[in-house]
This record gives sequence, structure tokens and C-alpha cells, in this order.
Amino acid sequence: MQGTKQPQGTAQPTTPAAYTPTDRTVPTRSAQKASYDKDLVHAILDEGYVCHLGFVRDGAPVVLPTLYGRVGETLYVHGSTGSRPLRMTGQADPGLPVCLTVTHVDGLVLARSAFHHSINYRSVVVHGLAHDVSDPEEKLAALDALVDHVVPGRAADSRPANRKELAATAVIRIDLDEVSAKTRTGGVNEEPEDLTLPHWAGVVPLRKGYDTPVPEADLLPGTGLPAYLGVL
Amino acid sequence: MQGTKQPQGTAQPTTPAAYTPTDRTVPTRSAQKASYDKDLVHAILDEGYVCHLGFVRDGAPVVLPTLYGRVGETLYVHGSTGSRPLRMTGQADPGLPVCLTVTHVDGLVLARSAFHHSINYRSVVVHGLAHDVSDPEEKLAALDALVDHVVPGRAADSRPANRKELAATAVIRIDLDEVSAKTRTGGVNEEPEDLTLPHWAGVVPLRKGYDTPVPEADLLPGTGLPAYLGVL
Repeated sequence: MQGTKQPQGTAQPTTPAAYTPTDRTVPTRSAQKASYDKDLVHAILDEGYVCHLGFVRDGAPVVLPTLYGRVGETLYVHGSTGSRPLRMTGQADPGLPVCLTVTHVDGLVLARSAFHHSINYRSVVVHGLAHDVSDPEEKLAALDALVDHVVPGRAADSRPANRKELAATAVIRIDLDEVSAKTRTGGVNEEPEDLTLPHWAGVVPLRKGYDTPVPEADLLPGTGLPAYLGVL
Repeated sequence: MQGTKQPQGTAQPTTPAAYTPTDRTVPTRSAQKASYDKDLVHAILDEGYVCHLGFVRDGAPVVLPTLYGRVGETLYVHGSTGSRPLRMTGQADPGLPVCLTVTHVDGLVLARSAFHHSINYRSVVVHGLAHDVSDPEEKLAALDALVDHVVPGRAADSRPANRKELAATAVIRIDLDEVSAKTRTGGVNEEPEDLTLPHWAGVVPLRKGYDTPVPEADLLPGTGLPAYLGVL
């Protein structure tokens, strides 16, 4: 619960280092895997490309993958003004109940027993209300955050949205308030009596990286690979 | 809509090659990215490790990452008998409304305009009712499918669940019926007037792979790396 790192874009001079657990963010099992540490939550969120956004439509759940961006303690999701969750958010008062989840799979955990097979992972689950972003400045900042979330530094190296594109794009905000992280790391858990079994056991780490960028064929002559792509 | 591949574990001699679109599985936008082809859906599902399972609790959505397995046209999810969605499924009649989504991010799409930034991806969204699996044979087959989903061939090379472990594990089934895939591939979409801008544009492919497996320190002497791990 220690920590003094100032989250980006937060107005307060100091902020608590952890989210307050609630009934929804305390898991019914494996509670020791849960964390409310803001730095951990931010790191997991910032490493992801896609979140899974859940909402309720006609009483049934809907879970859609979508890009997102973070500014301090706020997440932004964008889409066509015609897309269902964004349209529903615009019509919801005081906001559309959503659950936004980001997961990284880090390794395959192979135990001698089928029962103890698992994966190493890091996930964040955010509960809250989605609100339509109507303020033009906040909307522009959110769109920059969405582009910079995919490739940090990219927003400044692309043409900003024009009036027509802004009008066609809806942005919703979800504040980071009711949030938890859950992680599994390390090796295999095993029943003591299984240690004499002849099966291989261990962890297969997943490797993530990038292949060589593929430029469009019609770049202006002399347009080299930007430095921010060289460090990916 | 052509295709004669027999899905694994399906009893019928022939099955339709595509799911029937419904109001929930036809997207409101980018409908050309949607597909109902069973082979494509199966391939996307089989490549994933984690799905995002959505359900409704007290009127609000909940989205949790979890392992899954496929047997023919049925998905299985397992967990502790104490976990919320599995407990809720056991109490729901005729089943718990769920939405199960699997997403692969294949590349970062960098356009000259911020507006046309995107990602290449493949996703599957499954709508349906989750049912508790009580039949012991189906439960055992589901648990094998869950282990083999992580590493094909692994279930046969591990100790099967014993009676105590089976009693502590709940399994739910979701039939593949109301299902769609959505994919984006290829290069950048761009406004014609942006082609003269000096920004780099192209696709950064994401590379996925495995690092060297890390064996537990206490394997029985002579326990080598199984062949099914060497091909990962």
C-alpha cells in the first residue's frame, strides 16, 4: 500500500496508492491473488491493446473487444456513433453500467495432475458507469490517448481528427474507482503425493514481441521508420 | 458458406458449415468484417488460451477471464464450485445468460490520420445460456478438453482428477449456436487526401511464441521434455 508515484493527468497533489476494495472487487476465491495497487493496475492496463467491454442489453450480457486509452484515473473507449454500447451510453442516465477487463497470459503452468494445470496471468477488472464524453477538449485528449496507447508517441505524428471525423466518433469515459488486479506467477502447485509421478511439470513462458513493420507501398519518398517504432 | 469438415465430437453425420445470424450476432457497423463460418470460429477459439466470460449480477455486467475448452459445438468453462458465475449457473433455470468472447490481436495498424488507426484482429463472440454439467462422463471429458486446450496431448500425460478434485470443480457448458467471428486483416485504410502527408504508415505485426520451458526442480530423474512441448 506504499507508493508515491503520481498518476499521469491526476489533478490532486497526492492520491491514495490503492483502490478501495468493494463487494464486487473482492474475489470469492483465490483472494490472495487480488491486488488494489494503483501502480500495478496502471501497468497492466497500459501493456494491453484490447479490453473486453461488458454491458447489459435486453437483460443479457454482451462482451466486445475494443481499443482503449488511459489518462490518469480515467479510461476512454471510442467507436462509431452508431455502435451499440456507445449509443446506449449516450442514452443512459446516470451512465451505462459496464465492466471492462484486460488480461495478459504470461505462461502455461503444467502440473503432474490435471487439476493443478493453470496459467500465469495478469488481469484488471474495472466496474463502473460509462459516460458519454461531450466536452470537445476532453474528447480530443481521449483520442490522443487512444492512439498513444497503441504506440506511445504516435498521436503527435499523425493527422489529428477533423470536424467530420470527430462528429462520427463517440467517446465514453469510465473512471478507475472500483478496480482490482489479479495475478498468478511462479511455478507449479502440486499435491505432495504427485511428486513421484513420471510426468514432466513446469512452466512454458509465452513470448510476445513484434515482427518487422510493413510499410504501405505509397509512403512519400524518404519516409523512414519512426524512432518510436524502433524501440517496440 | 462451403465446407465439409466434420467438427470434432459432433454426432450428426453432416452439420451446416455456418451459424445462423441473429439480431445479436449481426453487428451494427462493419458488418462486412463479420463471419458465421464454423471452421473460422473453431480456429479462432482453438488458438486462444483465455476467454472473457460475461454475465449479469445484480443488474450489472461482470467480465472475467477464464480458461475454456471446446468439444465439437460445445464450450466448457470450469472453476471452483465456490466461484460466482459457476454457482450462479447451478442456480439458474433454464441457464445463466452469458456472453463468451475470445480475441487475438495480430497487428497494429498505423494510418497517416489518427482516425484510421486500428488493429488487425480476430475475435469470436458467443451468446447463450450456460448450463451446469452434472453428468460424470461429460464432466471428465470437459476437463480433458480444458487441459488439452492449453497444450494438445497433455491430458493423457497427467494424473486425472480424483473424486475429491472432481467434487471441488464445477463445469459449465455453452453450446455454439448464436455465434459470430469478426476479423480485420491487411493494410491501412486512408483518405486519398492524406496520402501526401509525411507520416510513416503501415502495419506492425505482433509476434507470438514460446520461450524455453522451465521444468520444476523436483522432476523425477530422466523426465525429459515431452514431444508435444517441443512442437509449440
